[in-house]
Formats: sequence, C-alpha cells, structure tokens
Amino acid sequence: MKIAIAGAGAMGSRIGLMLHQAGNEVILIDRWPEHIKTIREKGLIGTFEDHEIVAHLPIFSPEEIVADHATVDLVVALTKSMQLEAMFQDIKPIIGEKTFVFCLLNGLGHEETLAKFVPRENIIFGTTTWTAGLAGPGHAKLVGTGSIELENLAPKGKAFTLEVLEVFQQAQLNPIYSSNVRYSIWKKACINGTLNGLCTILDCNIADLGSLQVTKGLLQAIVAEFAAVAQAEGIELNQHQVIQAIEATYDIKTQGLHYPSMYQDLILNHRKTEIDYINGAVWQKGQNYQIATPYCAFLTQLVHGKEELLQAN
Amino acid sequence: MKIAIAGAGAMGSRIGLMLHQAGNEVILIDRWPEHIKTIREKGLIGTFEDHEIVAHLPIFSPEEIVADHATVDLVVALTKSMQLEAMFQDIKPIIGEKTFVFCLLNGLGHEETLAKFVPRENIIFGTTTWTAGLAGPGHAKLVGTGSIELENLAPKGKAFTLEVLEVFQQAQLNPIYSSNVRYSIWKKACINGTLNGLCTILDCNIADLGSLQVTKGLLQAIVAEFAAVAQAEGIELNQHQVIQAIEATYDIKTQGLHYPSMYQDLILNHRKTEIDYINGAVWQKGQNYQIATPYCAFLTQLVHGKEELLQAN
Repeated sequence: MKIAIAGAGAMGSRIGLMLHQAGNEVILIDRWPEHIKTIREKGLIGTFEDHEIVAHLPIFSPEEIVADHATVDLVVALTKSMQLEAMFQDIKPIIGEKTFVFCLLNGLGHEETLAKFVPRENIIFGTTTWTAGLAGPGHAKLVGTGSIELENLAPKGKAFTLEVLEVFQQAQLNPIYSSNVRYSIWKKACINGTLNGLCTILDCNIADLGSLQVTKGLLQAIVAEFAAVAQAEGIELNQHQVIQAIEATYDIKTQGLHYPSMYQDLILNHRKTEIDYINGAVWQKGQNYQIATPYCAFLTQLVHGKEELLQAN
Repeated sequence: MKIAIAGAGAMGSRIGLMLHQAGNEVILIDRWPEHIKTIREKGLIGTFEDHEIVAHLPIFSPEEIVADHATVDLVVALTKSMQLEAMFQDIKPIIGEKTFVFCLLNGLGHEETLAKFVPRENIIFGTTTWTAGLAGPGHAKLVGTGSIELENLAPKGKAFTLEVLEVFQQAQLNPIYSSNVRYSIWKKACINGTLNGLCTILDCNIADLGSLQVTKGLLQAIVAEFAAVAQAEGIELNQHQVIQAIEATYDIKTQGLHYPSMYQDLILNHRKTEIDYINGAVWQKGQNYQIATPYCAFLTQLVHGKEELLQAN
C-alpha cells in the first residue's frame, strides 16, 4: 500500500517505520527542518528494545508536495491538533478521489476539519496505545508495545478499512476493528481532558493529582460535561467507567509518576497546548448545542492564560 | 470606650494602637505566643512613617479569657476568617448583653458566624482601606493612610454605631458611616474573589493577570456569579462598576506589581487560604439559593488542591 505519514514526529516515525518494514511504500511529511535534513542524509533510525533499524524513507515538508505529486492510497494523520488543517491544505496534491485518511490524532473536532478535504466515506478514525519518543531529529526510540483501534466513519468505507487493518496487521501494529471508535475517542479525550489540564494548572504529576481530596469532584464535573456534549453527538459515555479509567492512571507503578504531555509541552517546554481540541472543543461544541460546560471553559481559559504568561509558542 | 481587639495581627495592632493613643481602654487578644510574649515584655511597638510609639497594652490568648473577665463595650473582630468562630467561642466571657461586635474581616459569611454569639442589633460591619504589616512579633509597621466604612446591621444598632464612629474619629482612623456596608463588603469580596484566586492559580502578579486575553472573560464569569448570589441576599451589585474597580488594580504604579495576599499566604508561605470565605462562600450560598456558581466552585477546588499539594497549614 502507498502510505503517506502526515506528521512524522515520534508516533508518525514509529508507524512509518513499521509499515515500511512490512513492505509498504511509505513517505513521510513533516515540518521540522532538522528532522528532514537528518533523514535525507542518514535515513530514519528506529531504536527498538533489542535492535536498531535504518530506513531510507522519502521525507518532504508539506510545502514540497506540489501539484504533480502522485496520489497515495492512505494518509495517516499524526500532526499536532492545531497543525492538522494547514497540513491538509498543503498536501492536497497527494489526496486523490480514492485516497483514504486515517486520523490517529488525540482530541476532538478533527472530523469537521478532515471533512473539508475528503468525503466522510474515505475517513477512518482510530486511537492507539502505542507510545514513541524521539532521541533527536531522525531518531525514533521505540520501546514497549501497543495496539490500534480503528473504524471507518461511514459504512461505505468499511471495505478499504479492512484492507488497512490487514496492512497494519502485517506490520505488527496490532490493529483491532472497532465497533464504536468515536466512543473510544471521547473516552480518551475525557482522560486527557482531566489529567492534562489539571496537572498543568496545579503543577503536579498524575499520582499527586489522584491523591487530592478535590480531584474526585473535579473529575465528576468535567466528565459530566464531556458526557452531555457526547450525548448530543449520539455517543453515550458511561461516566462511571470513564472515571474508573482515569483513576487507573494514578498508580505509581504505571503512569502515576508521569507528567501528562500538556504539562511537558507547556510547563517544561513553553509550547502551546492542544487544550482547544480537548476541553476547548467540548466548550465550543457545548455552545453549539446550548449545553453549559463551565468547567471545560474555565480550564481552557486557565491553560490559555498560562500559555500567555509563559510566552508559549 | 473599653475595646477588645480580637485578632491583633498587623491590622489589629494598628487599630488597637490608634484607639489606645486616643485614650480608649484597649486590650489585645491573639493566639501567637511570640507576639504575646514580646508585647508583655516590651510593649507593642508601632513604627509610623516619621515616629515610633510603644504602647503597654494588655494582651491575652483567647484561652486566657476566663469566666470572671470583665465585659467590654466593643469587640473589633480582625482574625483570619477561619479563626473567627473559635475566637468568639473562647472570648464569650468579655461579651456582655450590651457589647457590640465590629467585624472588619474580609470575605463573606461572617454575619452568620457572629449571629451565633451576639444579637444582630449589636453587630456592626465595616471595610477598611488602611494597610498594615508586622516587622516581627510585637512590632507593627504603619505607613500610609486609609479610611473605615461602617454600618450597623440592624436599625436598632445605629445609636451605638455612631458612638463608635466618634471614637474612631478621635483616633484619626477616618471612619465613614455607610449607607450600604453590605454592598461594599460584596464589592470588596468580588475584587478578592478574582485577583486572589486567579493570581494564586496562575502564579502571577496583578498586572500580569490584567494583561492576559482571557482575564476579561474570567472576571465577567466570576463577578456574574457573585452578583447572582448577592441579589438573592438583597444586594444589587453593579457588575460593570465592580469590573472597573478590579481593572483599576492592574496599574503598575499602584497595585499592579503586587502579589495578592492569598498568593503570599499559599504560594510563598504555604499557609491555608481564606478561599472558603470568598469564592467558596459564594459557592456555598449559591447551593442554598439553587444558583449555579461553577467558576467560584472550580476556583475554590483548585485553591484547595494547591493547598494540599503544598501541605499548607
């Protein structure tokens, strides 16, 4: 299969490498100049737990995708949330009538963005438990294991989605065909929508957050807002189950001592956060449905305030 | 007039000293052992801008106020909010049938607490613009000037309140008889209920808070909640005027570079805050009146979370 990875950061590099290893024709697209330069000079290095591989994959900046570029069968979207729309504007030439987009971004609101570029029947959504890191430009660190849940948005997309499933299976990416991927996306957004914002604003790790007397009440308030808005979109979130999943992350033997990605982005690296695609998206959607979401609104405002104070960019 | 200062910290020391200078019989009541010891040994020192005084005022811990203690004409309440009730439990012996209580605490909810100890017609409320600091135990630093607005809660209390006004006038404390002290208390609570909590949670000074794009929206949301609950208590807050008063504090030539008292208490000194008597009181009162106050609730929860993380006491 001819596959473009739109956003070849840590996770994009992992998936690109594994799909390439399984014999697919993979191209990478990313905006980071040092990453592009290093991969062009030395190839993309993948350090797995017990071995290292080097893959000489073609890599382009989005601006290099010009009109005469050949189309691909599948675009795997793995940009930061705020870069998704600009990426798809730039890579229009590789999107043909038959091209599918497989969106693996965290957060909410990406359906609406992608629908501007491809018909709904050509869209696949997914969530993944794989992790990945970058040791530096052109060098992915790939430890642990994971799986990918995926589903076509419209019934007509099922046949090709099963082909994608097969390709990912061969690449040992452990795909699972989901019966309700939008539920999984909302559930994951709830986890991010509590841990990310609260640890960032309170300046603490996940276990510390879990230890606070106020946290249970905060989770209930925030998850209830996600559930009310999800319901307006036809998804019945089981709030009790979602809160259990959040509380399962407190364990210091697993994720407890970890600072969520938003904390790392904003507090450690002074980078803008994805809050607009998590709590901010619930706030925005809530306004459209006339559902009050004050906790999501306030948390979004506080994170934006903190971004401004830290001059995040 | 025989006056007890219940809570002889910085502000209590100032007012006690100035009332003593004007010839009143003043006793101090406070829980801080070093403060009591120093004042008993050396007197209470007051350093004004251009002179210093030493006043040998009697000082007691609340536990020392035992059954045979003589009653006073007036108790000026100046404890921390959370210490008010315990203080009045302890000092019952000095409160006779004719004793008035003049409450100068910031925050909300003190009417209900004081009404457990004195009839409403013996209660005076006030707000002050005087400032004060302590250079150490037994040593008050008293720069600048200010005024005190005061009013009896019940019409029957007016005659004695005017006597208090006269006494405070002689002490050059610049008292003003207010026509609506509860309005002033709510307005001041709004200022504290925005600046204190937001600067504490965002870790910034007042000018920084004022510079953020999100701040106007946050002020509007928080002040609207205060106004809705105030209205249920018969007070019509002018939200526009209150927001103007808050925004007037951003100026770096006046308070802008200042960190609010809650920030100093919690972030710098790891002390528990008065949030339960500001936003927390609005949340609590809102629940009684079935008025939604999610911004006050969330801000209260965040501050309590931060207290727990910093092991404030």
